[in-house]
Amino acid sequence: MSPKHKRINLNADLGESFGAWTMGRDEQMLQLVNSANVACGFHAGDPLVMRQTVATAQRHGVSIGAHPSYPDLQGFGRRRMDLKPAELEAMVVYQIGALQAVAAAEGHRVTHVKAHGALSNLASEDAGAAGCVARAMRAVDPSLILLAPALSALVRAGQDCDLPVVEEVFADRQYTDEGHLVPRGHPQAMVHGADNSARHVMTMVEGQALVSINGRRLPCRPGSVCVHGDNAQAVATAQAVRDALAAAGWALVPLPDLAAR
Amino acid sequence: MSPKHKRINLNADLGESFGAWTMGRDEQMLQLVNSANVACGFHAGDPLVMRQTVATAQRHGVSIGAHPSYPDLQGFGRRRMDLKPAELEAMVVYQIGALQAVAAAEGHRVTHVKAHGALSNLASEDAGAAGCVARAMRAVDPSLILLAPALSALVRAGQDCDLPVVEEVFADRQYTDEGHLVPRGHPQAMVHGADNSARHVMTMVEGQALVSINGRRLPCRPGSVCVHGDNAQAVATAQAVRDALAAAGWALVPLPDLAAR
Amino acid sequence: MSPKHKRINLNADLGESFGAWTMGRDEQMLQLVNSANVACGFHAGDPLVMRQTVATAQRHGVSIGAHPSYPDLQGFGRRRMDLKPAELEAMVVYQIGALQAVAAAEGHRVTHVKAHGALSNLASEDAGAAGCVARAMRAVDPSLILLAPALSALVRAGQDCDLPVVEEVFADRQYTDEGHLVPRGHPQAMVHGADNSARHVMTMVEGQALVSINGRRLPCRPGSVCVHGDNAQAVATAQAVRDALAAAGWALVPLPDLAAR
Amino acid sequence: MSPKHKRINLNADLGESFGAWTMGRDEQMLQLVNSANVACGFHAGDPLVMRQTVATAQRHGVSIGAHPSYPDLQGFGRRRMDLKPAELEAMVVYQIGALQAVAAAEGHRVTHVKAHGALSNLASEDAGAAGCVARAMRAVDPSLILLAPALSALVRAGQDCDLPVVEEVFADRQYTDEGHLVPRGHPQAMVHGADNSARHVMTMVEGQALVSINGRRLPCRPGSVCVHGDNAQAVATAQAVRDALAAAGWALVPLPDLAAR
Repeated sequence: MSPKHKRINLNADLGESFGAWTMGRDEQMLQLVNSANVACGFHAGDPLVMRQTVATAQRHGVSIGAHPSYPDLQGFGRRRMDLKPAELEAMVVYQIGALQAVAAAEGHRVTHVKAHGALSNLASEDAGAAGCVARAMRAVDPSLILLAPALSALVRAGQDCDLPVVEEVFADRQYTDEGHLVPRGHPQAMVHGADNSARHVMTMVEGQALVSINGRRLPCRPGSVCVHGDNAQAVATAQAVRDALAAAGWALVPLPDLAAR
Repeated sequence: MSPKHKRINLNADLGESFGAWTMGRDEQMLQLVNSANVACGFHAGDPLVMRQTVATAQRHGVSIGAHPSYPDLQGFGRRRMDLKPAELEAMVVYQIGALQAVAAAEGHRVTHVKAHGALSNLASEDAGAAGCVARAMRAVDPSLILLAPALSALVRAGQDCDLPVVEEVFADRQYTDEGHLVPRGHPQAMVHGADNSARHVMTMVEGQALVSINGRRLPCRPGSVCVHGDNAQAVATAQAVRDALAAAGWALVPLPDLAAR
Repeated sequence: MSPKHKRINLNADLGESFGAWTMGRDEQMLQLVNSANVACGFHAGDPLVMRQTVATAQRHGVSIGAHPSYPDLQGFGRRRMDLKPAELEAMVVYQIGALQAVAAAEGHRVTHVKAHGALSNLASEDAGAAGCVARAMRAVDPSLILLAPALSALVRAGQDCDLPVVEEVFADRQYTDEGHLVPRGHPQAMVHGADNSARHVMTMVEGQALVSINGRRLPCRPGSVCVHGDNAQAVATAQAVRDALAAAGWALVPLPDLAAR
Repeated sequence: MSPKHKRINLNADLGESFGAWTMGRDEQMLQLVNSANVACGFHAGDPLVMRQTVATAQRHGVSIGAHPSYPDLQGFGRRRMDLKPAELEAMVVYQIGALQAVAAAEGHRVTHVKAHGALSNLASEDAGAAGCVARAMRAVDPSLILLAPALSALVRAGQDCDLPVVEEVFADRQYTDEGHLVPRGHPQAMVHGADNSARHVMTMVEGQALVSINGRRLPCRPGSVCVHGDNAQAVATAQAVRDALAAAGWALVPLPDLAAR
């Protein structure tokens, strides 16, 4: 993914309502992003929410991916669970399939997978968990794109399984010197404000590197930028990031167009 | 499905364990039946149980179908729930997809769908619920075979959706004069004993009709016989039914072979 | 409960958040109502939400009751489920106990029970379901107050079990000529606007009768008024109802004070 | 608890069925043990199973305790989950209360609490988790007896909260030199055979010490012996342990009698 092509993807976690509870500004976000990571019922998203999310994504030309999680509605998939590898792999398979059928029912198609929450955090650091996610994807459909945090164990696991891999950077999160996300509890975990986020993204995308909280530069090849969308500020951030990328000549494309290069 | 072809299918509900709890004699039953209805996580069957069930079915040359249910683990899907049509349809889509991916991961393929428990009972009588199941199947894959109780509203809904439909009769259940199953609570709901079940089946299959508890004959075209497998007696019944059918010259085939006629 | 005492209670369903999802304006409502019906984890309300709700109620001098439901998070307890009486009774017992312990942990006390959603609707019409709720309460603690829709089967079941019963009317819902709530799907189900709700309440409370959508008067003894609180309008309605009652000389008291008369 | 009193308790984890799935030989075990740890719906045990278990325990004069767990039916509470302290404490409170109400409904009473599975393992080693369990108990009812693995962090947490604490040893599990249970995955985790288990117990009870797999002696004051009961062998083991203790002059008593000394 040479930077001269100047193609990039904007992704967001969507479809995180559940039953009577709503979350996120999906309708607005789906007008800004190119790809949506859709909750599959384990941390959020019941079958009806999934179907509505897929239909809206389809209408806006947004590509969709499964966003599998630990089975933990109450904890929103943010609590680490100690699962056996075979269990974890089977759960990821299950969630991908559930979304594939929902997509088929709406004439859409699942083209990528991105791990959610505590599963993503573990799989970013731990080769064992990362391998479970990658093997689950390969077992279901080896053409599925793995959307993984830049420089993570998940990237390597995806490459080992011969999956197409796209590395993502986060618009509103700071990095440690080792390239991990600064944990949510930490006072400096977040990048605040739409403009700061846009600058943070441009530095990483133009510089083809993560930039840590201490200014350390970790070369990588960012193919996608993750923006969040659960409040008005977040929508503004997504808009600012999108505008900054466009102004710098980056074409914003769905993940399949990017991975196809 | 003319009787002169003398082809018939034996099906059972399998994969009904959950986590630490086991149910059913799946290993034995998979040596006797041609098609397995696999629980999809809503009334039984977690992702790992599903994967193991599919792998064992694959090994025994048994075709598999999704066995979708109301979301009700505690009630084992036997409690009627008042769902809106869009919810019900989306839930069936979700469950089919989950099993499709598990099947893909094992190199197997979902070729049919059979509704479970209270959902099956409602969809057998109520055209609205039956339509939800049939539309969900058509939306995911119109080549999926609908395995439905003979003479039920589900059969008609499947035909209306242009799905391949196979009508089933139950080896161990009695019928009312209207062709419904005598409810489980009723003292005469069940046919007891392997020999009685085999006779019950042969009367219906050779006679191409349901025979009610009062002896009333309701013409139908039984393509499949459902046997249950949760105790030693049930395995004996399955064996007896299988032997009786074979002795009478019926070829026992997986559902796709039957529907392909 | 003679009207000359002019004591009345204001109640609301609260603690309906779950995990990462929030619902309701509990903090505002707890400044307006005298008694809170607290979700017990079956349709909403996880243990932490329950504890926080109880603590806030305690701080505002609001009495609390268990708000048991069918086990149906996804459907928010609004989908009728066909449970056996022993199951239903045990579930109500379980939910009351869970809240009792949470209350004990906060130095508060559960003094009433009010059925939620589809369970309330069924138990308002069906003596069997109503009996399950009442027997569950009596089995746990016969001094628990049953808060039940005026003129419903639940009122009678509570009286049959010698429970203290308080009849409630709804500020924002219309009644049929038979005294049932006009179903939510019906275009005239709701009373709109804070002023209309306040007038609706005053007519019923001062007139000691439900007034149906067709103007029919059904004498009853309203001891409590239910207000809802999931949006800004609802908070305004609660305030208007409270003000109207106070202006007419009604003293607003927690349920135990009312039942103690 | 001086050995000269020669009083001891036999406890087992019971009520671990769920809905249509059964587990354990509760009826047999309740004739052998003095105290039952009853699953509270988070890893096993639905409200109806809980009620039936409590009623049977009541009939056999067996004292009951809450057996709280992580919220993980599929993993049977055996998978460690990373919960925040306030969440964990609230969950334990909730589960104790649920069982208390079920007990009240049957005229029985919850007199102890014992942590289940992965929660027990973590709380045995980690003072933070142990404190959550102990504080939850104290908040609900400071007279509840904490039944905790001998020499564990849970014992210390209970003492710090001024709870009555009874230390238990396991009839069928081996110990490390540090006094922890040898993990289930380890080939030498289990003591096999009824006679070996009875000998293992007598060595520990008469010697007032854990004896590790390497023969190391760790002095403690065993007040209760945990036996398991999910197969025929386990029932034989419980019987053998009971007989050996009785033959050596130990009186077998419910936990409240023991803690009251």
